Amino acid sequence: MKKKAIKSIEEMGEFGLIEHLTKKFSIHQDSTLKAVGDDAAVINIGAENQVITTDLLMEGVHFDLMYTPLKHLGYKAVMVNISDVYAMNAVPKQITISVAISGKFSVEAMEEFYEGVQLACDEYKVDMVGGDTSASVTGLCISITALGTALPKEIVYRSGAQNNNLICVTGDLGAAFMGLKVLEREKKLFEEDASIQPVLGGYDYVVGRFLKPEPRVDVLLELREKGVVPTSMIDISDGLSSELLHICKQSDCGCVIYHDKIPISEETGAVAEEFQMEPLIAALNGGEDYELLFTVPLSAYDKVNEIPRVSIIGNITDHKGTAIMMLDEGNAVPLQAQGWNAYGDNQ
Amino acid sequence: MKKKAIKSIEEMGEFGLIEHLTKKFSIHQDSTLKAVGDDAAVINIGAENQVITTDLLMEGVHFDLMYTPLKHLGYKAVMVNISDVYAMNAVPKQITISVAISGKFSVEAMEEFYEGVQLACDEYKVDMVGGDTSASVTGLCISITALGTALPKEIVYRSGAQNNNLICVTGDLGAAFMGLKVLEREKKLFEEDASIQPVLGGYDYVVGRFLKPEPRVDVLLELREKGVVPTSMIDISDGLSSELLHICKQSDCGCVIYHDKIPISEETGAVAEEFQMEPLIAALNGGEDYELLFTVPLSAYDKVNEIPRVSIIGNITDHKGTAIMMLDEGNAVPLQAQGWNAYGDNQ
Repeated sequence: MKKKAIKSIEEMGEFGLIEHLTKKFSIHQDSTLKAVGDDAAVINIGAENQVITTDLLMEGVHFDLMYTPLKHLGYKAVMVNISDVYAMNAVPKQITISVAISGKFSVEAMEEFYEGVQLACDEYKVDMVGGDTSASVTGLCISITALGTALPKEIVYRSGAQNNNLICVTGDLGAAFMGLKVLEREKKLFEEDASIQPVLGGYDYVVGRFLKPEPRVDVLLELREKGVVPTSMIDISDGLSSELLHICKQSDCGCVIYHDKIPISEETGAVAEEFQMEPLIAALNGGEDYELLFTVPLSAYDKVNEIPRVSIIGNITDHKGTAIMMLDEGNAVPLQAQGWNAYGDNQ
Repeated sequence: MKKKAIKSIEEMGEFGLIEHLTKKFSIHQDSTLKAVGDDAAVINIGAENQVITTDLLMEGVHFDLMYTPLKHLGYKAVMVNISDVYAMNAVPKQITISVAISGKFSVEAMEEFYEGVQLACDEYKVDMVGGDTSASVTGLCISITALGTALPKEIVYRSGAQNNNLICVTGDLGAAFMGLKVLEREKKLFEEDASIQPVLGGYDYVVGRFLKPEPRVDVLLELREKGVVPTSMIDISDGLSSELLHICKQSDCGCVIYHDKIPISEETGAVAEEFQMEPLIAALNGGEDYELLFTVPLSAYDKVNEIPRVSIIGNITDHKGTAIMMLDEGNAVPLQAQGWNAYGDNQ
């Protein structure tokens, strides 16, 4: 029983499993420029490149219908996917959306969901071009694929970060995770006593960040205007630590970030305090922020520093395999994919 | 309770639901040539057009792991999708595949599934370029998206059928459905007495057609060689009746087919007899054959008639809304989406 030739799925983790399962696949088509391993695949379609990305959202794993209105869910499902297209520095153009529903769903419920999908499509000028609907023996299951385009020279991969590049993040981090904590607390109270109404007043910002995230198109446009093309980029869906490690692994480099440079909103800090949690943990490991993490050459410092919603949080090093965060006291702690648990409170 | 402003999902059916939910969506991108409503969407990518199609396969709805080996399931999942690409007269190039798995799955089980995926990819020269893996609270859920290309003049829609066009089908129909019946019978016997081994000998053809279908690339190549471009085309995944009605609806026409022209293999006939079923019912309503249904101008009769695996089964008429099948006695029965139940045995 103790001998195991192959790791279990849990031991491998999502990224390990994908890597393991797909490593033997070969490429047959010249048009396939990048297959598995970035925010999106890249296909040569002539003058432009096309990027393609797909996500599977499962009820009970990725969302809880008890506190996620269906319209928000539809909106977020689109957003999560086009965020990956933007993270390739491409412009989303089309999506397909497939939905499997259990018997408990009404036509009205599906209408609500698709209203959210449509809202996101209209907002980001994306066409819904196809999909599939199916029955499901259990929960709701959503699969979205997004297509986008960019000129070949515009595409930004995870693998382009270089020694001394500046590490930048957009917006602020950790808010979506604290929003989730608030929603889960209210759910628990409701389950204990159904007469209790959820108290979400005062939590608008963090709850909004969780339920209705937006991709960081504004910063991408400003970078384009200033003529700055990031050397690497990824969207922050699994927390800053995990995404930084992806960039370091694929760019074959290391990094140093500074804890006091990581952007965390006042609201996030206040809610974290209420939950007796370190806000930095939410920022590093919380996920679902859908901000962008990118690197630029040192020479772009002035230009990037001018953009209000960009924080420079550290730099890339040539210490392959060493990804660290500096603390006030001059101590360094390693960044970990499941998060940095120096405070012993790894959420 | 009796008044219902909106139909239930069951009343609407899959196609009605998709139509209802997507009718309000608008198109923002010039590159979107065809959105919802065909085997695949069509996107302008320059000199060529790109087609994109997606399918969701849910355990307990689309497949039963009790009699579907995981390797076969992986193969079929790819095949089902690229069949839609071929049905647009395009060549499949890339796929993405997302899988949600419950705790009962081992790495080895996933390896088996991906072996099947890889086999299909290698067979049809398709690149697996991305996907997602996720946990599932219950069953296995598979989402596949396939991309292909064709010259604009080569793309064949469901909407191009014209009065007097010949209606053609490839291969033979109903076998996959009879294969499914055999597998379900063996499953039931096994559930009643676990010591019973499944008896599948003698059922190779029908079981093989269900477990390992192949797209009809051979006929497409022959049509291309002969310079015949179908006026409309669809792959037969839901049974001949349902697909013919799609073509009639979208081409704004009617059709007449002849019951004795519908190709049914000897094996299918024998198994149907064993199950005391009319083989024609399996052909009309069974589904999962993944043969092609297409129409050609009358002038292509000689060329199409030369292709061994093509049967001409009837013709398109201008009697919009009238889709009928002629019986021996000169009687006509209407074709129905849920199948033709003249024998009172609508499977």
